[in-house]
Amino acid sequence: MQAPVQSSPTSVIKSSLIEPDGGVLVDLAVPESEREAKTVEAESLPKVRLTKIDVEWLHVIGEGWASPLEGFMREAEYLQSLHFNSLRLKGGSFVNMSLPIVLAIDDETKEIIGSSFDVGLVRPDGDLIAILRSIQIYKHNKEERIARTWGTTAPGLPYVEEVITPAGNWLIGGDLEVLKPIKYNDGLDHYRLSPKQLRQEFDRRKADAVFAFQLRNPVHNGHALLMNDTRRRLLEMGFKNPILLLHPLGGFTKADDVPLDVRMEQHSKVLEGGVLDPETTIVAIFPSPMHYAGPTEVQWHAKARINAGANFYIVGRDPAGMGHPTEKRDLYDPDHGKKVLSMAPGLEKLNILPFRVAAYDTVAKKMSFFDPSRAKEFLFISGTKMRTYARTGENPPDGFMCPGGWEVLVKYYESLQPEEATPQPAAVSS
Amino acid sequence: MQAPVQSSPTSVIKSSLIEPDGGVLVDLAVPESEREAKTVEAESLPKVRLTKIDVEWLHVIGEGWASPLEGFMREAEYLQSLHFNSLRLKGGSFVNMSLPIVLAIDDETKEIIGSSFDVGLVRPDGDLIAILRSIQIYKHNKEERIARTWGTTAPGLPYVEEVITPAGNWLIGGDLEVLKPIKYNDGLDHYRLSPKQLRQEFDRRKADAVFAFQLRNPVHNGHALLMNDTRRRLLEMGFKNPILLLHPLGGFTKADDVPLDVRMEQHSKVLEGGVLDPETTIVAIFPSPMHYAGPTEVQWHAKARINAGANFYIVGRDPAGMGHPTEKRDLYDPDHGKKVLSMAPGLEKLNILPFRVAAYDTVAKKMSFFDPSRAKEFLFISGTKMRTYARTGENPPDGFMCPGGWEVLVKYYESLQPEEATPQPAAVSS
Repeated sequence: MQAPVQSSPTSVIKSSLIEPDGGVLVDLAVPESEREAKTVEAESLPKVRLTKIDVEWLHVIGEGWASPLEGFMREAEYLQSLHFNSLRLKGGSFVNMSLPIVLAIDDETKEIIGSSFDVGLVRPDGDLIAILRSIQIYKHNKEERIARTWGTTAPGLPYVEEVITPAGNWLIGGDLEVLKPIKYNDGLDHYRLSPKQLRQEFDRRKADAVFAFQLRNPVHNGHALLMNDTRRRLLEMGFKNPILLLHPLGGFTKADDVPLDVRMEQHSKVLEGGVLDPETTIVAIFPSPMHYAGPTEVQWHAKARINAGANFYIVGRDPAGMGHPTEKRDLYDPDHGKKVLSMAPGLEKLNILPFRVAAYDTVAKKMSFFDPSRAKEFLFISGTKMRTYARTGENPPDGFMCPGGWEVLVKYYESLQPEEATPQPAAVSS
Repeated sequence: MQAPVQSSPTSVIKSSLIEPDGGVLVDLAVPESEREAKTVEAESLPKVRLTKIDVEWLHVIGEGWASPLEGFMREAEYLQSLHFNSLRLKGGSFVNMSLPIVLAIDDETKEIIGSSFDVGLVRPDGDLIAILRSIQIYKHNKEERIARTWGTTAPGLPYVEEVITPAGNWLIGGDLEVLKPIKYNDGLDHYRLSPKQLRQEFDRRKADAVFAFQLRNPVHNGHALLMNDTRRRLLEMGFKNPILLLHPLGGFTKADDVPLDVRMEQHSKVLEGGVLDPETTIVAIFPSPMHYAGPTEVQWHAKARINAGANFYIVGRDPAGMGHPTEKRDLYDPDHGKKVLSMAPGLEKLNILPFRVAAYDTVAKKMSFFDPSRAKEFLFISGTKMRTYARTGENPPDGFMCPGGWEVLVKYYESLQPEEATPQPAAVSS
C-alpha cells in the first residue's frame, strides 16, 4: 500500500479512509538501509539538544500527525499558523495548522550552528535521534506567539510556563529526518500507534467510518453514552462498521491532570467493564503535548485525527479549555471551540459532531443527555467534584463510572500527598 | 453601470478593474425614495449611541470598503476574523477580513434593546443615521480580542485605550442600512470618495492599472520616488495608463501623528510642487480608523483598496506598525507586514509591490533607493528627526521634501505647544 514519492522519506498511504492533509501522509522515519550512514553524518553536524516536549513534537511531526508539515516550522509556516491557523498549499488550497509547531534555541546554540545548513537533534540524555535539514533560524517573539495562540498573555498558562518562557529567543525550522523510532519505555509504547498504523488497523477492521474522541481525562459514563450514541447515529446514517478511535493525549499535560499511565489503566477498565465495545473501539495514544489553547488547539486536535484517517470528530463544551489563570472565569467561551472548529479553513472534509451535554440523571440513576425541562433532576459532576469523591473515599453516584475505572482513580488519588491534589476549576471535559 | 441585486440596498459595480471581494461592491445607503419611511421606522426602534470612531466604521462598512460585509460583525464573522483573518463565502472561497469590525454596547443599552430585532444607530450628537437589522448580541471578550488582533496586551496601544478599554462588554452585529450620507463638515468631504466613486473615476480616466499607497504621514520625496518608480515599473510591464491612488487614512490616528487637515494640505503642496503628477494621481481619503496592528492591519489596508478597484498595493517597512508601548523595540518585526500580506488568504488577486527602502543620499543630495554598498552616504530621516527639524526651524537636507510641503509642517509644529509635540519612536513609514 506504499509508493515512493519525490521527497524521500515521505511515503504514500492509500486507504478507503479520509485522505490525509495535502494528499500524502508524511512519514519522516529514515529507512533502515540509510540509517547508519545518516547517523554517521549527523554525528558530524552541530547539535541541538531537545527538551522532553521537543521530542514529543518531533514524534508528532515524524509520524505525519501534522501532515503535510515535514519538519519544525520555518518562518513562512510559522507566520501562516499564527495569523491564519492554516497553511496554503502550492495548488492554492488550505490545510489547517492552528498551533505553531516550532523548535526554540538559545543564543549559544545559534552561535554553535553558525552557517551550517543542517543540524543533528539530540534527546535530553544526549542520544542522537534526528537531522534537521536546510535550516532557517528566525526570531522567537514569545509575547506575540503567546498572545496570538492563547488570546491572553496572563501569567500561569501551563504550556507557556513549562515550554515557552524558559525557551531561547530563536526558532529553528527545517526538514526533519528521524533516525530512530521514538520510544518512551513506560510500558505504554504499544498504545502509540502512528497515523499509518491506525489507518492499517481501520482497514483491517474494514471500517467505513472512523469517529475520534480526544480526551485527557478519565472516561466516565457520560463520555461513554456520547460515544455509544455517536455510533448509533452513524449506523442510522447508513454506515455499516463505524469504528471509535478513543484517543487520549499522551504528551505534556498540566500538573493537576490525571497522569497518562493512570488514565490508560482507567480506560482499560472501562473497556473490560463493557461500557465500550472492544470490537468496535481502538484505544491508542495521541503523542501530542497539550497547549490548553481552547478554540485554537481544538483545530489541531481535529486536524491530526484527519491524518490518522478519522472522518468524524466529536467536540464538546470548552474543548482544550481551562480556567482563566488569573480571573475567576473560563479562559474561553465554552461554545467557541465547536463554533471555530466548524468554520476552520482546511477542516471542511471532517464531519464535526457537536457534543450533547451529559449529566447524572438522579431519577434514572445513570448518565443521560441533559434535559433542560427537568434541569433540577440532573447533577453535573465536575473534575473537582470527582476528585473530592476519590480523595475522601466517597463513592460517586451509581452509574457515574464503571466500578473498575473508579477504583483506578481512587488508588491514584490515595497515592498523592494532600498538597499535590490541588483542585482544578475545569469541569469534566475531553 | 449599476444593476440591482437580490439584497437591497447592495448594488453591483462593473468595471474593467479588479472585482470587489465577494463579487459585489456593497453599498448600504438607503435609496432616497425609502429614506423617509425608514427614518420614521428607525425613530420607533431602541437606539444605540455611537462614538465618533463607531461612525467612522459605519462609514467604512456602508460604502463597501469591507465588502462583502453588510454590517457590524455578528459572532460568526467576528470569530473568523479573529482566528483566521478571513471569511468563508458560501461558495467555499475566502475573502480577507483581518480586523474585527464590531460595535460595542454596554449592559444598559443591551437592557434597553431587550428582544428587539432591529435598532436605530445615532451619532454622538443624537442624530439618527442608520438601522441595524436582525441583530445579534454576543460577549465582548476584550482581552482575547486585543491579544489576537495586536499580538500583545501591553498597556498603551492607542486604539485599545481610545476605543476598546472604555467600550461595553457586549458586541452587537447585524445588517446595516445607512439613512444619511456620512459627512464630517471639515472642509475635506470632497476628498472622501467611496469605492464606487473611485471606481467610476478610474474608469473615467481609463486606468488599466491602479496602484494604491496607504499613508498616515506627510509625503516626503522618498515616498514620491517610490510611487514614481512603481509607475515606471508598471509601464515597463506593459500597462498603458497606471493610476496612483494616494490614499491617506482619515479616521482615528494617535495623538502624535500629524492631523488629517495638515496632511491633506501637505499632500496638495506635493502635487502642486510637481513631485507627483496630478494627471495620473488621485488623492482621496480612506475613512478607516487606524489600529496600529501591524501585519494584521496591513491586510485590512490592502483588502479595502481591492474594493476600491486597486490591483497593485505598495507595502513598505513595518506597515501599520509602531514602537512597542512598553519595551524599547518595534512592536512588530518590520518585515512581517509584507510577508504576512503576501501569504494572506483572500489577497491572492492583489499584486503586492514590496517597498524598496529610500533614504537621503548625501552625495546625490536627494532621496534615493538605499544602496547597502555605500551605506555611509545615506541618511535615514525618522519621523522624530523630521519633527525636530520642523520644531527647531532647521531645514531638512535639500531634496528631502518639496519646500511647499515642508512649510505646511513647520507651520503645524510651530502651532503646537511644546508639551504636545512629543517625539514618536517610529520611523517615517506609510
